[in-house]
Amino acid sequence: MGNAQVTNEGNRPQISEQQKAVEEDLVQRVLESFESTEDPRLKFLMQRLTVHLHDFIRDVRLTEEEWDFAINFLTQVGHITDDKRQEFVLLSDTLGASMQTIAVNNEAYANATEATVFGPFHVEDAPKIENGEDISFGAEGQPAWVEGTVKDTDGNPIPNARLEVWECDEDGMYDVQYTDGRMSGRAHLFSDENGEFRFWGLTPVPYPIPYDGPVGKMLAAVGRSPVRAAHLHFMVTAPEKRTLVTHIFVEGDPQLEIGDSVFGVKDSLIKRFDEQPAGTATPDGRDLGDKTWSRARFDIVLAPEEA
Amino acid sequence: MGNAQVTNEGNRPQISEQQKAVEEDLVQRVLESFESTEDPRLKFLMQRLTVHLHDFIRDVRLTEEEWDFAINFLTQVGHITDDKRQEFVLLSDTLGASMQTIAVNNEAYANATEATVFGPFHVEDAPKIENGEDISFGAEGQPAWVEGTVKDTDGNPIPNARLEVWECDEDGMYDVQYTDGRMSGRAHLFSDENGEFRFWGLTPVPYPIPYDGPVGKMLAAVGRSPVRAAHLHFMVTAPEKRTLVTHIFVEGDPQLEIGDSVFGVKDSLIKRFDEQPAGTATPDGRDLGDKTWSRARFDIVLAPEEA
Repeated sequence: MGNAQVTNEGNRPQISEQQKAVEEDLVQRVLESFESTEDPRLKFLMQRLTVHLHDFIRDVRLTEEEWDFAINFLTQVGHITDDKRQEFVLLSDTLGASMQTIAVNNEAYANATEATVFGPFHVEDAPKIENGEDISFGAEGQPAWVEGTVKDTDGNPIPNARLEVWECDEDGMYDVQYTDGRMSGRAHLFSDENGEFRFWGLTPVPYPIPYDGPVGKMLAAVGRSPVRAAHLHFMVTAPEKRTLVTHIFVEGDPQLEIGDSVFGVKDSLIKRFDEQPAGTATPDGRDLGDKTWSRARFDIVLAPEEA
Repeated sequence: MGNAQVTNEGNRPQISEQQKAVEEDLVQRVLESFESTEDPRLKFLMQRLTVHLHDFIRDVRLTEEEWDFAINFLTQVGHITDDKRQEFVLLSDTLGASMQTIAVNNEAYANATEATVFGPFHVEDAPKIENGEDISFGAEGQPAWVEGTVKDTDGNPIPNARLEVWECDEDGMYDVQYTDGRMSGRAHLFSDENGEFRFWGLTPVPYPIPYDGPVGKMLAAVGRSPVRAAHLHFMVTAPEKRTLVTHIFVEGDPQLEIGDSVFGVKDSLIKRFDEQPAGTATPDGRDLGDKTWSRARFDIVLAPEEA
C-alpha cells in the first residue's frame, strides 16, 4: 500500500512486556471461549473477528471515552435503521467494507465485466419491458438510450439473459424514497436472440446517500462528501453464468474526481453518455420534442458460474 | 499467543497477484478518503479501523451471505437496545472488547489493585451509608460482611476515599431489572480516618447476562455460557488517585472454571467469602437469627492519577 498507509510507529506509547502479556492473555482467553463452536466456519469467523477486533483496540490504544462514543454511535445507527432505512449498510458502504466483500467474492475472470455494490434500492418485482421500451415509468430526467450486448467470455452472444436495471430520477431520488409508493425508474428485460438489449432510461445524476443520520455525521466529521457518482444499476443473470451486479458510471461526472462515497467506481465501468442536441433523430424514431437526450453503450461479459 | 491461535494458512484459497492488487487498491482508496480529516486522532482511528476491518474481510474471505448475516445481526442488536437494555455493550463484553479496552487504559502499576469491567448496572445516585451499615436495602440473599482498607501504592492509608458498591440479589437480578423502580443492592460509603471500610452486603451469586436477544443467540451458537462469575462491584475514587473500577469474585465459584461470560476475572480479584454457620457472632453484634452469613476482606491499593 502506498502513501496513505498509516502505521502506529510513533503514535504508540511504549508497552511493557508485562502489559503486552496481560493483553495477549485476554485475547487467548476469548479465542479459547470459541473453541467448542460446532460449526467450523463460524468458529473460524469468530476467532478471526476476535483477533482483528483486539488488534484494533490494542493498536490504537482505544480510550474508554472512545469506546463509549463507539457504543453510542452504533446505538444511533441501530435506532435510525428500519424497513426503509438501512444505516448499517450505509456504514459498511462508506467504510468500503461492502465493496471489499464484493471484491473478495467476485474475482476478476478473463474479460468478464466487473461487479460493484448492490446498494439498498433494488426492488424484487420491477415491471418487465420489451427491448426498446422505457424504464422510467414517469421518473423525471434527461432521456438516455442505453444499448449493448450480453456475451460469454469466449465472445458468444447470450440470448435471453435477464437484465434488471434501476436508477434515481433527476433529483437523485429512487422511487422507494417517494412517499406515494409508485414504482418508477426500474424494470427488467431480456437480451434478444443476438444477445442484444436496448432501452430508454434517464441520464444518471449524482446524489447523496442519506446523510441526516450518524453515518452522515461521520462523513462530515472526516470531511467526506456523501455523494455517489452518477450511475445506472444492472443485475444480469443467465443460466450457468455468475450473476453480475454492477453499475455503469458517467464519463465526465465531477464526482468521479471527488470520490464516490461508497467506493463503487471501477474504471472499466465508466461509460460515455453522449449528449444529443434537442431534435437529434432517436434510434427508434421516438419524438422527444425539444428535449436533449443522451446515448450510452454497455457491452456486458458474463463469467461462468463457477469462475 | 498459544494453542487456540488460529491462522488462515490452509483455509485461504490462493489469491492471485491481480486479485490482491484489486483488494489493496480499494483499501488504499478508503484510507485516502480519510486524509482530509481535521482531527488527527479521528483520522488515525478511522484509518486504522479501515485497515483492520478490510484485513478481516480479506482474511476470512467473507461471503456475501455472511455479510448479509452480519448486517441483520447488527440490526437486531440495534433494535433490542433501549434505555434499559444495551445489547451493543453486551456484544462488546462477550467479545472481550470491553475488557481489552480496560486493559489498555488501566496498565498494571506497582501493587495497585487491578481493574475490571464496569458493566451496565451502575446507577449514579446510590444512597450513602456509614461504615458498618447495609447496602442491601431489602435485596434478598445471604448476608456478607465485607471489610478492608484503601491505601496508596506506598502503603499509606487513604482516609475519606469514596467507595461505590453494587451487586445483584440472590436471584441474579439488579434493582434496575426490577419492575417496581426501587433502589437496592447498592450504596456509597467513605473510608474512615484509618483508610478502613466495612459494610454488610450479600454473598455474590452467578447470573446470566440477558440472553434472550441476538448476543444470547450468538453465545448459544458457539456453545458458550452466558453466566457471569459471582461478583461484587466496586468503584473507588480519591483525590489524585486513578479511579478504580473493579469487582471481587468468590473463591470456589464453579463459574470461575467454566469461564466468566465477559472475561472480567483476574486472579488477584478472587477473594474468600468465608461462610459462617447460623448463630456465629457477627463483627458488629448484628443478630442474623438463624441465617448463615459470610465474611470477606478486600484490601484496595489505588495507583496515582497519572500512572
